Amino acid sequence: MTGSMVSVVGAGHVGSAVANALVLLRACDRVVLFDRDSARAEGEAWDIADAIPLLSEMEILPTADYADLSGSEAVVVTVGATSGPGQSRLELLGSNAGITAAVIGELDRFCPDAVVILVSNPVDVLTRVAIETSTRPAHLLMGAGTVLDGARLRQRLGKLLGVEKEDVHVYVIGEHGDSSFPVWSSATVGAIRLENFRLPESTSLSQLEDELTATTRRRGLDILDRKGFTSYGVAGAVARIVRAVVRDEKRIFMVSVLAAEEYGIGDVVLGLPCVIGRAGVERRLLLTLSEDEERSLQRSAEVLDTAYRSLAAAGSSTE
Amino acid sequence: MTGSMVSVVGAGHVGSAVANALVLLRACDRVVLFDRDSARAEGEAWDIADAIPLLSEMEILPTADYADLSGSEAVVVTVGATSGPGQSRLELLGSNAGITAAVIGELDRFCPDAVVILVSNPVDVLTRVAIETSTRPAHLLMGAGTVLDGARLRQRLGKLLGVEKEDVHVYVIGEHGDSSFPVWSSATVGAIRLENFRLPESTSLSQLEDELTATTRRRGLDILDRKGFTSYGVAGAVARIVRAVVRDEKRIFMVSVLAAEEYGIGDVVLGLPCVIGRAGVERRLLLTLSEDEERSLQRSAEVLDTAYRSLAAAGSSTE
Amino acid sequence: MTGSMVSVVGAGHVGSAVANALVLLRACDRVVLFDRDSARAEGEAWDIADAIPLLSEMEILPTADYADLSGSEAVVVTVGATSGPGQSRLELLGSNAGITAAVIGELDRFCPDAVVILVSNPVDVLTRVAIETSTRPAHLLMGAGTVLDGARLRQRLGKLLGVEKEDVHVYVIGEHGDSSFPVWSSATVGAIRLENFRLPESTSLSQLEDELTATTRRRGLDILDRKGFTSYGVAGAVARIVRAVVRDEKRIFMVSVLAAEEYGIGDVVLGLPCVIGRAGVERRLLLTLSEDEERSLQRSAEVLDTAYRSLAAAGSSTE
Amino acid sequence: MTGSMVSVVGAGHVGSAVANALVLLRACDRVVLFDRDSARAEGEAWDIADAIPLLSEMEILPTADYADLSGSEAVVVTVGATSGPGQSRLELLGSNAGITAAVIGELDRFCPDAVVILVSNPVDVLTRVAIETSTRPAHLLMGAGTVLDGARLRQRLGKLLGVEKEDVHVYVIGEHGDSSFPVWSSATVGAIRLENFRLPESTSLSQLEDELTATTRRRGLDILDRKGFTSYGVAGAVARIVRAVVRDEKRIFMVSVLAAEEYGIGDVVLGLPCVIGRAGVERRLLLTLSEDEERSLQRSAEVLDTAYRSLAAAGSSTE
Repeated sequence: MTGSMVSVVGAGHVGSAVANALVLLRACDRVVLFDRDSARAEGEAWDIADAIPLLSEMEILPTADYADLSGSEAVVVTVGATSGPGQSRLELLGSNAGITAAVIGELDRFCPDAVVILVSNPVDVLTRVAIETSTRPAHLLMGAGTVLDGARLRQRLGKLLGVEKEDVHVYVIGEHGDSSFPVWSSATVGAIRLENFRLPESTSLSQLEDELTATTRRRGLDILDRKGFTSYGVAGAVARIVRAVVRDEKRIFMVSVLAAEEYGIGDVVLGLPCVIGRAGVERRLLLTLSEDEERSLQRSAEVLDTAYRSLAAAGSSTE
Repeated sequence: MTGSMVSVVGAGHVGSAVANALVLLRACDRVVLFDRDSARAEGEAWDIADAIPLLSEMEILPTADYADLSGSEAVVVTVGATSGPGQSRLELLGSNAGITAAVIGELDRFCPDAVVILVSNPVDVLTRVAIETSTRPAHLLMGAGTVLDGARLRQRLGKLLGVEKEDVHVYVIGEHGDSSFPVWSSATVGAIRLENFRLPESTSLSQLEDELTATTRRRGLDILDRKGFTSYGVAGAVARIVRAVVRDEKRIFMVSVLAAEEYGIGDVVLGLPCVIGRAGVERRLLLTLSEDEERSLQRSAEVLDTAYRSLAAAGSSTE
Repeated sequence: MTGSMVSVVGAGHVGSAVANALVLLRACDRVVLFDRDSARAEGEAWDIADAIPLLSEMEILPTADYADLSGSEAVVVTVGATSGPGQSRLELLGSNAGITAAVIGELDRFCPDAVVILVSNPVDVLTRVAIETSTRPAHLLMGAGTVLDGARLRQRLGKLLGVEKEDVHVYVIGEHGDSSFPVWSSATVGAIRLENFRLPESTSLSQLEDELTATTRRRGLDILDRKGFTSYGVAGAVARIVRAVVRDEKRIFMVSVLAAEEYGIGDVVLGLPCVIGRAGVERRLLLTLSEDEERSLQRSAEVLDTAYRSLAAAGSSTE
Repeated sequence: MTGSMVSVVGAGHVGSAVANALVLLRACDRVVLFDRDSARAEGEAWDIADAIPLLSEMEILPTADYADLSGSEAVVVTVGATSGPGQSRLELLGSNAGITAAVIGELDRFCPDAVVILVSNPVDVLTRVAIETSTRPAHLLMGAGTVLDGARLRQRLGKLLGVEKEDVHVYVIGEHGDSSFPVWSSATVGAIRLENFRLPESTSLSQLEDELTATTRRRGLDILDRKGFTSYGVAGAVARIVRAVVRDEKRIFMVSVLAAEEYGIGDVVLGLPCVIGRAGVERRLLLTLSEDEERSLQRSAEVLDTAYRSLAAAGSSTE
């Protein structure tokens, strides 16, 4: 045994940023960075490795051989195209479903006990593809979900209220994409309900909610417009989820999971609050939603179910 | 300038544990440990210093001279007797008020801009004494309040619900002592209201609340019975508050402050939610309480006001 | 599996400080604190546990049952009396050898694969007792050795030279006690040999070496005189060794081990440089010593061998 | 005051990776990311900011206005082209000297007390340009030097010897580029001289030294060949230097500084061991070199002096 090991599949913008974040946050003891293109894996892993003697005791190793992933406690999957400016996450689906299924097949073979975290977009549908395809139990599979969307919202809300963002609690759930939405009805600052919190002068609650819902949804595009892709933000969020797995933290994150039966939205996969630990999705929590929020969740579920069914009809991923 | 500096006044069980926690948590760059008995300050500071070369770049220095506290960003005051088994926190008052006023006088002289955090018990009344006595603005003075009581409650509630304690949000407010109480009406798990969270089988909400209120209130005594004093817990809590000051975090803690006018309980000092940052108490937050909770707060305020007035009548501390 | 677990045997001054340091340094995911006196284990573990919700995701559990140590990656043994003012470490031997053998027997039964780190004094002789007694391979057993002595020396030397102590490299080897000594012939500052480093004005190298050798040897007593016992320093040092085991760091520490044959000093156990990782003592390094240093090592070995043999003669520990 | 602030000038591959590393390593309390192209600064800063609510209490702000850098404790300068495959670092000189001088002018105006760390290549010559140009004292200016080269060497040597890289001490000095070289004569493992350390079977010391000197020098190119640029490694190294400044650590790094007179190589700037703290280059250390190493340093100095003089002759940067 040599400490805790985490693997990252795909050494593109996102995959290498995830590997780098795992190292800088010291989220585990060893990182394996896989890419079919071994030179790409080497270039990124070596670049990351170079500063390690100045920072901590860790190791990062490049590989193009799935066998080297054996022993991983968690595997982060970042393969497939990432969304470019003007392209919806759902449009990526056709190209990414097949490759996801193929990767999952390799992981089932070489690290059947690892917790697998999907990052490729559209993350909710691809996670559903992975769950259908994989031989591992569903609790060992999750998508990055709306973890980042929620962080974005908390960032802005905290700033607006002059309170540290870690003390602002509001969930963003549903599709990681255009139909996600904040659950305003349960938002709190510390343990104070947002509706009871003193807002900045000349700001009404509904105004604030509408504006933040819009800016949160637009945030990814604002970055894409300026940078051409996103990497650091999603990498930090994923590294945080990984740490919860490796340390068995049992913290709550909005990951992409099969919706619990109680929501009444069928077998769809989307971002919902879960307790994350060494066993992956250790528990799916139930939210009490307002009527509006229930309708929004329904809508999000429909968008995702349609996408999944169109894919199944085309037969591209599950055969 | 040589990095951020924090001082601890008093090198007894609690003071030395606070200094040790500041070092192990690397909450600042330099710690000064003051005690009138210089041998005591040396014994503790040297013991703590010994492992530092293995851990981080920090410094800890003993002193018996208040002038060495000059330049502190925060000062933690732990002087006075600590409560022993069977002794109420209020009984300590007579012996600790005078010494608190004297220490505050020295701090006003040598570090008038520092944020002062009182830990000695009864912490709420002593903080009121300090505020009355000090020439510094009230926002630079706070007591450790019910920070630890809240942590204790979250610990147990998290365990009971199978969720990481950092995701459990419930405030304990009022006197740090027998009349403190949890604000159950605003308790949440993640952003889910406790009343909507699925409890373990055969547990009712009111049963759970009653039991946890009782065990939280009893926790300090349970430790006193076994260990004779408490040190590590309060030290960790105080180091956490200090870090919020040094890093200007603007996080919410239940520190001892003058109650905001809106509570309608007069000029009493007790544990209430505040935003803590470089300027000390940067903002006092307003809680919406149930009627029962309002009555409990009223009661807690009365206990504390009576204690303060009996002290003022005896004339022991403010002259 | 629930993350990495470390146990501490003995909840006295040192044991509880070790448990506290493991938590504040987040050196593992779970700490078990054992004491035959369950109230003592509870008092300390609960006190430490109280601040955790404010700091990290960890757990600390008290126990009086060795079976609860099963699953530990490392076990720290702090049982037995600690040295008081005026008492030599060797005088403790008689009282501590028997209890060490008994504890090792329990650990062999319940966690035969754990790395065991002895802290009780005289640590070198007790480690030899443990190695003789235990059924586990010798590389899974080590004493805290001269890790703390070395840290103390680096602390002072760094200060004197105006360089961060982590950049000062000099080993203290031999008995953790009066016959330990710094290996000045290989001392470096960064990668610059101490003999080539510009010293403060009017300081000669031999003067500096003599003075630091003396103050390092006296440091423990200086603290004992003032505080009555030592706890924080040794706790930090031990927590650092534990982290090297849990994270498989392969870092070098001067732990108590059986001297390698090349030293020509027989089967004695004393502080020598070793690579520490998940397998415990992964490698014993060989030092090139000056003639003087060789004589000092010889002397240290004789002191320890005599102590061990007097013990064996008395028959107290190994039957 | 709002905690410690560090600015990064230039939001390209390296600058944004530095900003990201500062955040993930929590090296300060606030990061300002400057780029003349405000959209670029925003894209990178917003991407980095997105995960912060999940990680720590920090802030990162984009700007295109140098006035926002006022209050910085350290400024990292990453402007100018980075070296591409097949291009020597010295060839970049012409294009980068002018822009460096211009940036330094702005920094002199808005943050005259900050420690400035140059990263743009050729870093040694550009640091000399900066020192000549700037109105701030020379100790507030340094280049990233051979910090990364040294880390690379330690990484490989540690691996080869089976010892944690942080315990391997060997300096790489001279030009950050083709004429840098390891100071083998003072290499140690722990405090054991490399020449006395047991090497892996069938490896001679000179063989090992030659091979590692070559692979270290080639490492940057190996990454450039595979990735097209380097970013994560240099970013980690620079963030580590920044932390030493912000925390006043007084640790030793091989930064680009004016060579001390004792080396007898004139006014050239190149990588040499220095003590780094809040005052920047707090002390330049003197190395004892072998004759071979002295010749190598001479050669490195000549290469750099020639480059600087050719630049001065062309008149591009200092007018």
